[in-house]
Amino acid sequence: MEISAKDVMTLRKKTGVGMMDCKNALREAGGDIEKAVNILREKGIASAQKRSGRETKQGYIDTYIHPGSKLVAMVEINCETDFVARNSELQEFARNIAMHIAATNPLSVSEEDIDPEIIESEKEIYRAQALNEGKKPEFADKIVEGRVKKFYKESCLLNQNYIKDESSKTTIQDLLTDLIAKIGENIVIRRFARYEIGA
Amino acid sequence: MEISAKDVMTLRKKTGVGMMDCKNALREAGGDIEKAVNILREKGIASAQKRSGRETKQGYIDTYIHPGSKLVAMVEINCETDFVARNSELQEFARNIAMHIAATNPLSVSEEDIDPEIIESEKEIYRAQALNEGKKPEFADKIVEGRVKKFYKESCLLNQNYIKDESSKTTIQDLLTDLIAKIGENIVIRRFARYEIGA
Repeated sequence: MEISAKDVMTLRKKTGVGMMDCKNALREAGGDIEKAVNILREKGIASAQKRSGRETKQGYIDTYIHPGSKLVAMVEINCETDFVARNSELQEFARNIAMHIAATNPLSVSEEDIDPEIIESEKEIYRAQALNEGKKPEFADKIVEGRVKKFYKESCLLNQNYIKDESSKTTIQDLLTDLIAKIGENIVIRRFARYEIGA
Repeated sequence: MEISAKDVMTLRKKTGVGMMDCKNALREAGGDIEKAVNILREKGIASAQKRSGRETKQGYIDTYIHPGSKLVAMVEINCETDFVARNSELQEFARNIAMHIAATNPLSVSEEDIDPEIIESEKEIYRAQALNEGKKPEFADKIVEGRVKKFYKESCLLNQNYIKDESSKTTIQDLLTDLIAKIGENIVIRRFARYEIGA
């Protein structure tokens, strides 16, 4: 089928992917732009996962200073090359993540970074709560599991919903995966710090 | 004796202290400006020490981003009132301390914040070094003590010499004490973080 140059341009703008890949995705999608976006995302995510083992020794650090200077967040983003560290999309990502951290106050970057003792003590509290609420012990495990998942969703940066996404469906991990797919290098949120006066 | 208005002005500019205090200090110093500076500093330090117990719930956070964004430091300064948190001298202090931290990479704010285990392991190394160098065991303690002091001087922000002071005689604690004396409120360097790509 015939793919219009206008559709290719639209798709390029939406995904940041190269022209030939956009053309092929549009062909595969029978000209449907939304379907083509999904095709490219799936391909991108597949390649992003392949990249996730690669070493990241370069990077970019950014801060967000809330007006009044009583709340500041700092985040370090790592990538493979200095060329990508200077990429404006990576730098915009860093800026957005710093602002997100200032707003949501996560405990850690990922689930693995949370002290297992915290999780154990949370689990005990959830179990006691479930039993107090009259839940049967055989259901308590399931309830505890659900609440731990919720705890991670609230406390781990990668699990959190991105504050700037009004639909609240995009997690920080989604954003990161998209960025890796788009840029074509492994990218990692290495660490962050958030200071707030009086906290 | 007669104190000239010009000398009072010079002293005020040097110390930031009020006119009457400057006049009195000049009288006490027999008109010698340098002596008067010392008198005011001693008085200021005395009053700064009196203030050091007061609660600091307000504050100001600043960052220093080294060109290239691969080295960033963040510091939180606490004080007693929001009025002082908005004081330009306090904010300049915060900026300078952030830059200093970026340059010197301290381990902690003060000696008390260093993990005692680190000090114990440093002491063992120093003792072994001293004995290896052929020092007598009875002198080793003295040598270890000297090297621990040097370790603190290199590792603790408050003990470090301020990088912008070319004479290398002013420590960060001196700067802080002067600021407290000048502003008249307890001020504390609460915490800092320093991120460097690849470190």
